[in-house]
Amino acid sequence: MIVVLRLGHRPSRDKRVTTHVALTARAFGAQEVWVSTKDAALEKTVESIVTRFGGEFAIKTGMKWREAIRSWKGKVVHLTMYGERLDDVLPSIAKEDLLIVVGAEKVPREVYELADVNVSVGNQPHSEIAALAVLMDRIADDDTLYMNLDGRLTVLPNPRGKTVIDNTKEKGQGRARPR
Amino acid sequence: MIVVLRLGHRPSRDKRVTTHVALTARAFGAQEVWVSTKDAALEKTVESIVTRFGGEFAIKTGMKWREAIRSWKGKVVHLTMYGERLDDVLPSIAKEDLLIVVGAEKVPREVYELADVNVSVGNQPHSEIAALAVLMDRIADDDTLYMNLDGRLTVLPNPRGKTVIDNTKEKGQGRARPR
Repeated sequence: MIVVLRLGHRPSRDKRVTTHVALTARAFGAQEVWVSTKDAALEKTVESIVTRFGGEFAIKTGMKWREAIRSWKGKVVHLTMYGERLDDVLPSIAKEDLLIVVGAEKVPREVYELADVNVSVGNQPHSEIAALAVLMDRIADDDTLYMNLDGRLTVLPNPRGKTVIDNTKEKGQGRARPR
Repeated sequence: MIVVLRLGHRPSRDKRVTTHVALTARAFGAQEVWVSTKDAALEKTVESIVTRFGGEFAIKTGMKWREAIRSWKGKVVHLTMYGERLDDVLPSIAKEDLLIVVGAEKVPREVYELADVNVSVGNQPHSEIAALAVLMDRIADDDTLYMNLDGRLTVLPNPRGKTVIDNTKEKGQGRARPR
């Protein structure tokens, strides 16, 4: 099981970035995202995607991060540009239950201590979304990215346009939506 | 050479997400990011990172995207959740000069036509930052993520804290910044 814990979310400023964190977690195979700040609008945004595109993904906001980290039974992996090299850490975490911690701009020192590993996806400043995606992509099975989530809408690969199947239509009526 | 072209940037709304796109492009080995909307503040933010952390990365805003795509000599790869599967496309693009196009919410139909390939990193809605990172990570050499960019500041992998070398200090004075 993989859960992503997002720290330091400020609802007004981080709305879009934290939404990206949550949707990336879902698309790359996490079961839940936990956000340390209460944010009902964020929950609604993410739940709306789950309703339309399927899967069992859950979002919880207003989570107490210290308790969440301390009570986690598997490995706690903190993504930070200051951490160890991804390649060095990957073999020790790839098959574990993971709590992946991603911060916003400033992460409390305590997080570095509580985590089992502090890992960098490159030692350059970039994006917690990018770091999360690459870590999860390196861990995932080959079919994770294209798993069937049995949603109301299914997108099929298309070399030149958009193919969206609406699975609520009767068989034979479900068709690619023209664009 | 890899250049990332960001479409549909709205300076107020997309400030942080486009900054993440630009910094991800830089960290994963692109030489430039082009943004279709003029945004001097965004340029300044990205240039400040380059000044501190090194490398030759450039940002250009206010780029005419149609002309940029049409005049590109290598492959044009458009990242979209509607596109072909990444695994299917990767062998044909991995060694080329790439213009990687990432949109904001709504991308003009014309982009799907102008691109050499429309490629998805999963057919689920998530994040153009995540998609960009995974595509570039799959293409990159093993050492790209930890390349030495010869900047004023160098971050070194640290299992439990932060090691930041200030290379402007005299030898012997450059040291890990305590946190």
